Amino acid sequence: MSESPEKDERHRSRMQRKKAVVDEKIAQAQGEQGVFLVHSGNGKGKSSSAFGMVARALGHGMRVGVVQFIKGAASTGEEAFFRRFPEEVSFHVMGEGFTWETQDRQRDIAKAQAAWGIARQLLNDPQVGLVVLDELNIALKHGYLELDTVLADIAARPPMQHVVATGRGVLPAMVEAADTVTEMGLVKHAFKAGIKAQKGVEF
Amino acid sequence: MSESPEKDERHRSRMQRKKAVVDEKIAQAQGEQGVFLVHSGNGKGKSSSAFGMVARALGHGMRVGVVQFIKGAASTGEEAFFRRFPEEVSFHVMGEGFTWETQDRQRDIAKAQAAWGIARQLLNDPQVGLVVLDELNIALKHGYLELDTVLADIAARPPMQHVVATGRGVLPAMVEAADTVTEMGLVKHAFKAGIKAQKGVEF
Repeated sequence: MSESPEKDERHRSRMQRKKAVVDEKIAQAQGEQGVFLVHSGNGKGKSSSAFGMVARALGHGMRVGVVQFIKGAASTGEEAFFRRFPEEVSFHVMGEGFTWETQDRQRDIAKAQAAWGIARQLLNDPQVGLVVLDELNIALKHGYLELDTVLADIAARPPMQHVVATGRGVLPAMVEAADTVTEMGLVKHAFKAGIKAQKGVEF
Repeated sequence: MSESPEKDERHRSRMQRKKAVVDEKIAQAQGEQGVFLVHSGNGKGKSSSAFGMVARALGHGMRVGVVQFIKGAASTGEEAFFRRFPEEVSFHVMGEGFTWETQDRQRDIAKAQAAWGIARQLLNDPQVGLVVLDELNIALKHGYLELDTVLADIAARPPMQHVVATGRGVLPAMVEAADTVTEMGLVKHAFKAGIKAQKGVEF
C-alpha cells in the first residue's frame, strides 16, 4: 500500500518481464484440441472443480455429460442444480454410495460397468463438449473397471471433446495418459476440528 | 474383476472396518457453522472448485455472492453462466486482468480496495450463504489490501455463512485463519505440451 514511486516502478518493470514470458508461452501453445484432465489427491475440490468446469462449459454454450461412479446415493447440491438444465446437461448417477457403505464387491463391479456403458456413449458423441467422470479413479483403483478399456475409450473420443476424471488414488497409467493433472492436497480440514459436513460445502 | 469369494470377503471385511472409522468421525463432528475455505497452490482448479461450490449452494437454494479481485477483464464461462441467475447470484468483477497486463500498481490497489468494499457488504449479509473471493490471495500477496482488515471482516461474518478465498501464494495468516485449506498442486499441464488455453477448460 506504499505510495513510493520507486516501488511502483520496480513493480512495473517486474510485471513487464513477466508479461513477456507469459506472452511467449501463449505464442508457443497453439494446439487446438480436447483436453483430458485428472483431479486426484486427498484434499477437497476434486469434484467441485469438475463441476466448476461444467458451469464454465455451459457459459460457452457447450453440452455436458456427467457420470458419477461412486457417490450419489445422497442427492448432492450439484446434481440438484445441474438437473435444472436437462437440454444442456446429461446427468447420470450410477453408484450407490461409497463402497464401504455397500460392502458388496460384485454389486459395485456391476454398477461400475453399467456406468462405463453410459460414459462410453458420451465419449462417442461429438455434440458433447465436456464429459465429467466423477470418482472414476476410485472405481479403477478398486479394479471395478478394466483400465485398458477406459483408456482406449477416452483416447478414441471426438478430437475437440474435453474429459475430466476425478477421485483419489489415481493410477499411474491415468496420469501418463492425461494432458493436465492436478493433485488436490489436504493442508487442513474443518472436519478434523469437529465441524460436521456442511450444506453447500461438503454436499 | 475377480470372481473369487475370498477376495470379496476380504473386501467386505476391509470396508466394514473403514465404515466404522468413518461413522465414528461423523459422530464426533457435530458443529454447525459457516466454513472458511482457502484454495491455493500452482495447479488448476482453485477457482473452478469455488464455482463448483456455487453450483452446489444454488442446488440447496442458497444465495451466493462472487467477487473477482484480479481476473475478469476477459468474460469467463463461469461469469456468463452464473449471470443467468441474477436473483440467486450477485456477481462482481472488480479486477482488470492480471497485474502484469496493467503494470500500474496504484490502479491495482484502487481496484482491489473497491472490490473489498463489495466483499464487505456480502460478508455483512446473513441472506448470503456463500461468498466467493476469487483471487483474493493474489491481491493480499501483492499488498493491495490490509490483511488485518480482511481477516477481521471474514471473522465478523454471519455465523452460518461460508467463505472461499482462492489464488496462489496464500499468506500464512490466511491458512491459520481458515477452517479448510486445499493446495492444488501442478502435476502436469497441457499448456506445457503445446496445447493452448481451451474454451471450457482454461476460460
